[in-house]
Amino acid sequence: MSGHRPQQSWASWRTDESTNDIHDEEAFELSENGNLQGLSSQNHKLKYKDGSSIDWLHEEALEREREHVKKSQKSIRGLLSIWADSARVWLVVVATGIGIGVAGAWLDVLVKWYLLADLREGRCQEGFFYNQVSCCSGLDPGEFCTDWQTWSEYFKIRSLFLSSLLQSSIYVMLAVVFAGSAALLVYTYAPYAFHTGIPEIKAILGGYVFDAFLTPWTLLIKALGLALAVASGLSLGKEGPLVHVACCMAFMLSRFFKQFRYSEAQKRKLLAASAAAGVSVAFGSPLGGVIFCLEELDTFALESDVMWRGFVASAIAAVSLQYVDPFGTSKLVLFQVTSGGDTWRAFELIPWLTLGVIGGILGSLLIKLNTEIALYRRNSALNDYPILEVAAASAITAAIAYLVVFTRLQSSELVANLFQECDPTRGDYHGLCNPTAMWENVFLLLISAGIKLVLTAWTFGMMVPAGIFLPTIAIGACIGRAVGMLTQAVQTSFPKAWIFQACPPDLTVRCVSPGFYSVIGASAMLGGVTRMTVSLVVILFELTGALSHVLPIMVSVTTAKAVGDAMGKDGIGIYSGIYSVWIAMRDYPWLPPVDYNDKGRTAADAMRPYGTLVKIEDGQLTLKDLETLTKTRDFRGYPVVKGRDLIGFVTRDKLTSAVVRALDIHLSPETSNKKCRFSSKHFSSSDEYLDLSRCLENSIISLRKEVPQALVVRMFQKMNLRQILFTNRGQLDGMMTKSDVVALLTAHFSHTGALSTQNDMHPGGRRG
Amino acid sequence: MSGHRPQQSWASWRTDESTNDIHDEEAFELSENGNLQGLSSQNHKLKYKDGSSIDWLHEEALEREREHVKKSQKSIRGLLSIWADSARVWLVVVATGIGIGVAGAWLDVLVKWYLLADLREGRCQEGFFYNQVSCCSGLDPGEFCTDWQTWSEYFKIRSLFLSSLLQSSIYVMLAVVFAGSAALLVYTYAPYAFHTGIPEIKAILGGYVFDAFLTPWTLLIKALGLALAVASGLSLGKEGPLVHVACCMAFMLSRFFKQFRYSEAQKRKLLAASAAAGVSVAFGSPLGGVIFCLEELDTFALESDVMWRGFVASAIAAVSLQYVDPFGTSKLVLFQVTSGGDTWRAFELIPWLTLGVIGGILGSLLIKLNTEIALYRRNSALNDYPILEVAAASAITAAIAYLVVFTRLQSSELVANLFQECDPTRGDYHGLCNPTAMWENVFLLLISAGIKLVLTAWTFGMMVPAGIFLPTIAIGACIGRAVGMLTQAVQTSFPKAWIFQACPPDLTVRCVSPGFYSVIGASAMLGGVTRMTVSLVVILFELTGALSHVLPIMVSVTTAKAVGDAMGKDGIGIYSGIYSVWIAMRDYPWLPPVDYNDKGRTAADAMRPYGTLVKIEDGQLTLKDLETLTKTRDFRGYPVVKGRDLIGFVTRDKLTSAVVRALDIHLSPETSNKKCRFSSKHFSSSDEYLDLSRCLENSIISLRKEVPQALVVRMFQKMNLRQILFTNRGQLDGMMTKSDVVALLTAHFSHTGALSTQNDMHPGGRRG
Repeated sequence: MSGHRPQQSWASWRTDESTNDIHDEEAFELSENGNLQGLSSQNHKLKYKDGSSIDWLHEEALEREREHVKKSQKSIRGLLSIWADSARVWLVVVATGIGIGVAGAWLDVLVKWYLLADLREGRCQEGFFYNQVSCCSGLDPGEFCTDWQTWSEYFKIRSLFLSSLLQSSIYVMLAVVFAGSAALLVYTYAPYAFHTGIPEIKAILGGYVFDAFLTPWTLLIKALGLALAVASGLSLGKEGPLVHVACCMAFMLSRFFKQFRYSEAQKRKLLAASAAAGVSVAFGSPLGGVIFCLEELDTFALESDVMWRGFVASAIAAVSLQYVDPFGTSKLVLFQVTSGGDTWRAFELIPWLTLGVIGGILGSLLIKLNTEIALYRRNSALNDYPILEVAAASAITAAIAYLVVFTRLQSSELVANLFQECDPTRGDYHGLCNPTAMWENVFLLLISAGIKLVLTAWTFGMMVPAGIFLPTIAIGACIGRAVGMLTQAVQTSFPKAWIFQACPPDLTVRCVSPGFYSVIGASAMLGGVTRMTVSLVVILFELTGALSHVLPIMVSVTTAKAVGDAMGKDGIGIYSGIYSVWIAMRDYPWLPPVDYNDKGRTAADAMRPYGTLVKIEDGQLTLKDLETLTKTRDFRGYPVVKGRDLIGFVTRDKLTSAVVRALDIHLSPETSNKKCRFSSKHFSSSDEYLDLSRCLENSIISLRKEVPQALVVRMFQKMNLRQILFTNRGQLDGMMTKSDVVALLTAHFSHTGALSTQNDMHPGGRRG
Repeated sequence: MSGHRPQQSWASWRTDESTNDIHDEEAFELSENGNLQGLSSQNHKLKYKDGSSIDWLHEEALEREREHVKKSQKSIRGLLSIWADSARVWLVVVATGIGIGVAGAWLDVLVKWYLLADLREGRCQEGFFYNQVSCCSGLDPGEFCTDWQTWSEYFKIRSLFLSSLLQSSIYVMLAVVFAGSAALLVYTYAPYAFHTGIPEIKAILGGYVFDAFLTPWTLLIKALGLALAVASGLSLGKEGPLVHVACCMAFMLSRFFKQFRYSEAQKRKLLAASAAAGVSVAFGSPLGGVIFCLEELDTFALESDVMWRGFVASAIAAVSLQYVDPFGTSKLVLFQVTSGGDTWRAFELIPWLTLGVIGGILGSLLIKLNTEIALYRRNSALNDYPILEVAAASAITAAIAYLVVFTRLQSSELVANLFQECDPTRGDYHGLCNPTAMWENVFLLLISAGIKLVLTAWTFGMMVPAGIFLPTIAIGACIGRAVGMLTQAVQTSFPKAWIFQACPPDLTVRCVSPGFYSVIGASAMLGGVTRMTVSLVVILFELTGALSHVLPIMVSVTTAKAVGDAMGKDGIGIYSGIYSVWIAMRDYPWLPPVDYNDKGRTAADAMRPYGTLVKIEDGQLTLKDLETLTKTRDFRGYPVVKGRDLIGFVTRDKLTSAVVRALDIHLSPETSNKKCRFSSKHFSSSDEYLDLSRCLENSIISLRKEVPQALVVRMFQKMNLRQILFTNRGQLDGMMTKSDVVALLTAHFSHTGALSTQNDMHPGGRRG
């Protein structure tokens, strides 16, 4: 946990820079006519601190205005400037696509082909940076590979006991070294590089400001730490972290161009596209990337240009990955399924539905376990020794893994083997295909799944970059393979039973394909853990290339999600997937795109009523009062009232800069004692008051307090609002902010904010 | 065009029924306490006429309330009722999925395997309902098929000239008979069964009420007419109409259950799911169906339950289709691509980008041509003779088709052949693979594409069910194949050129795969015509099974869309795809999910200002006045004001039923002269006035008129609003309805409403 340690200077250097340059020349470039305060009410750039939420309405208005101003310049310069804007967007999109494609490919190369992974088992005489496969390549069939030596061979140890001891010691030791270095890197240089990153990216895309999460240091450390963490054999995947890395890349590239530095909305659109590219590379699934963005990351991705950019970024990333060709196969497909015939039989729906149910139950269990461990970690001594915890976890993982053949393999290799059908001509996959050892294999597979489940729940949240996808797939694949082998055993034992009539009568022809059961098991487990639907199916589809088996995958994902949601305490699926649970625990202001049933309650029950609001009384406060107000009451904005009539709404940022400028210009003490007015209606003499009416927001949305809560929630979800005012015939009744809505939706979830890092950033615990 | 003919009684019987039963028992079942008027302000069911738009906010509030009431009944009956609600939804979803799967399969069987298609060329001695393949099946290899006779054989004509004449006459004649019967059926029984149906479904899903479009008669006639139209050889496809048929099925099934009859929102969610099932069956693409719904049909599909249902419906439909197995292949894939190697070379991007550009240009041309022909048809004598037009078109189509070998084939067969690579062992595909006739083939392919382009532009919009997908694919496939063959010719002529260095040096190994160029051409053409992106790629991906070739498909679709959008007059892509153009021409109240750039204009420029609004002055009008108002001013609702202060908003429907009930109860003349009040604030004595305050809407949304137009448009898009009121400090400034927003967005499109059938339904031309 990056918990309550002080923020690292390494991680925050970009943030400081980004929040300092607010009143630069461009901020006023667009204003048609300056006024006394030098503050155009429309063109003002807002200053966002990390931990706040952006004002989408304001950002979008700003962007439209910029576009309009540029289009209305009829000169060649204006045209060029529009063209350049668009070109810069595409430049960043394409560069991010290429960057993440190459990075993903080299990550694989680093982990799998060279240096790290096989070093735990032995070394190559040709050079220690070759792995076993490349060391022994170029031999004639039948020739024995002498260049590759296990460690015991290298140290010339003959005793079987000593040899095993040495091998296992080196195996465990190197795992600890790899994992420990990863944790040390993360802890020292980029605390935000731990974990998967997807919850944060969901929050950022929803409008949360968290620039420290996307710095170049985070990028570097996350990529490097990820390679080390994967090589250490910890139970984690590279998928989520790759998405984070892609977003860091886009953020870094975008910093080179003013147009993104000053537009939080544009920046988020870029990030959405690069997240798609990240998924595309992580799974070799360009379509899955786009759909993952639609379903899981985004509430605003239906805007066609975002989808379009994501689409292009995904495609380019996949092309780059294919071009670098880490698997040497010229294919995007990671785990090729050797389909056991294109058809499946109706009776197979029974084991598949069973797998769906198991996936839902185990998925919920994994989430529950992971939550409990995370809470324990936060509230115990573990919190102070994150690196030690990682080292211990990797030692335990490696020690256990060394004992069980299926866990000793790298997860990706294990999954690739499990997805394959047995074929006598192609080896026995570490004993998996030995028909006489069926029961032993089933037992081993289930044990492996159990071990991996516990280890994954522990690992996901430690101080290393860690994705949840691959371990989940591995757990599901083990269980699926076991169920498949059992089904096959039953079928071959009772080939004449009426339920198996659809099978070919010739027993030498395979009827049940256990390899495909692995795919189904993986789908079900993923459905249970992430609660995604369409994007999961698309990803698995592209991952395995099993076009003819989309339907069973759909069935298993559907069942797992339904079972998992039903197991949740709420049963309404608002914060049900593992990412949502982490978002709620870390208390990010993120609104899940779900239907909220208000049970007949109206906004009046949820809003902050008039009496509790901090308001500005029109014409009553002096500049000095306002200055005090903005300094002491750290809300995002204040309603301006006259009596109880709503005059308007002013954001704290605008008010602050207006007050600062007014005090700058008129340094006399009587100015600071001058009262300020926001409307001209009630005040005849304009000399007596200082006019701040240009500070008022134009786009304020007001509703009656009798509207259903569900409508309010939906408005926040769909329109990305920061606040809604409740009025009746012009009189202010109350107000609701985004954080009030988040609080409403998370009310039933018991661990809300349990892991929040933001408590010290928000006085009074309010983000609103 | 179903133009200005009177509405057919066949088509509208369901509508009449559905709009009559408004004040039934259930409408008041949920109200906790009746009041004098028997009108609970919350539970009132709205009455929607065809041609109006539903009130989403109201519908959703209703649904939430129903759910809440049922959940708060703690009895077993309450629990059962919740369970039953959910079960009914799934029943309809599953039944629709199965229904459309089976219907789609039998449609293919009807058209391809038996009866219709081959009848134009000859007959089977075993029975005229066998087609050539099934007639000649069961023969030993080399044996000559004697059971199948061409018509000239049957009539024993030896002369080559006479034989050709007879064959072609029968070919043309039967085409005219098939197409004519289709048109006759549509014209007589179900005028809404013509065309593709997708524009209407987009409008319906967006809230347009058009029950006559979904009647069982429409279902029957569309399915039957579609089979006939496809068999006639007209240049049309079955994809769009199948989506329409699926929606009709869901609508028909939903009529059995009260819960859908009374909830327009629930009905639309069902329709969205069934549309996904329709696409799934049409293309054998279950994922494509879901994503088509997301991208093309829906602005609200991101609601997870809709996506979920669409997902399940799609899967079940595909399973049904696979189970009935019309292609005898046990595969969903319609056009199997025999992939010419899994890799492609960088130089191929040049022809593929070229194809993208061609697709964009020809797509725009097709849309333009189709629009012009549709306008000409509407405004010329053709409008009065739709059946004659269809007959003439089919005669011309058949006559031309008979002359060119590639157009004589059914489009689906042609596409299947074009997508295949040449393989000496598998026949020469109607001469396509004859290497000596390369130039002739290229010429023929381009001619075929041209012919098909013109015929498609004519056919799409005639009085027969007609989809645009398959013809578009055929045009693109022809062009793609031609480009592929040219590329191949260049490559084999100059194998040593530097650009072809990536090709294997052995010339007998194929480097360029013209079959795959067909797929690329088809993608590009589809991109140009429909302007879809992600869903197209997914559909083509599933259609062809070419996993390794997703990236080139993405590139071509992207290019085609960009070129097509740039060719459009607006260049902003609001009404750019062919479906959007038809929606605009028919003037449906549909908001495209696009960014609207307001160029700095505010709502004040677009709203109907205060002076032009029809308002109700609080406490000034008598019951009689209100009755007159609701009868003479046919707006959807009226703002209620006191002076200029906004009191609230009342919909016409609620007001009408309140007035009718009040007049029913108090028949005395003084009652009808009693003034009505909507607020209690300004009126002390409650006897003096009739209290109608319960009629006021709770969920009214008010903004300031200074907000940008883009924000207003987005609110309508995202929140499915019917109107927004503009107020300032409680005073009404103006109002904007959905139709005002549609008018704003279609302002630049010159043919808006040119084909509207609704002019007679809306006095004053307003839907608002």
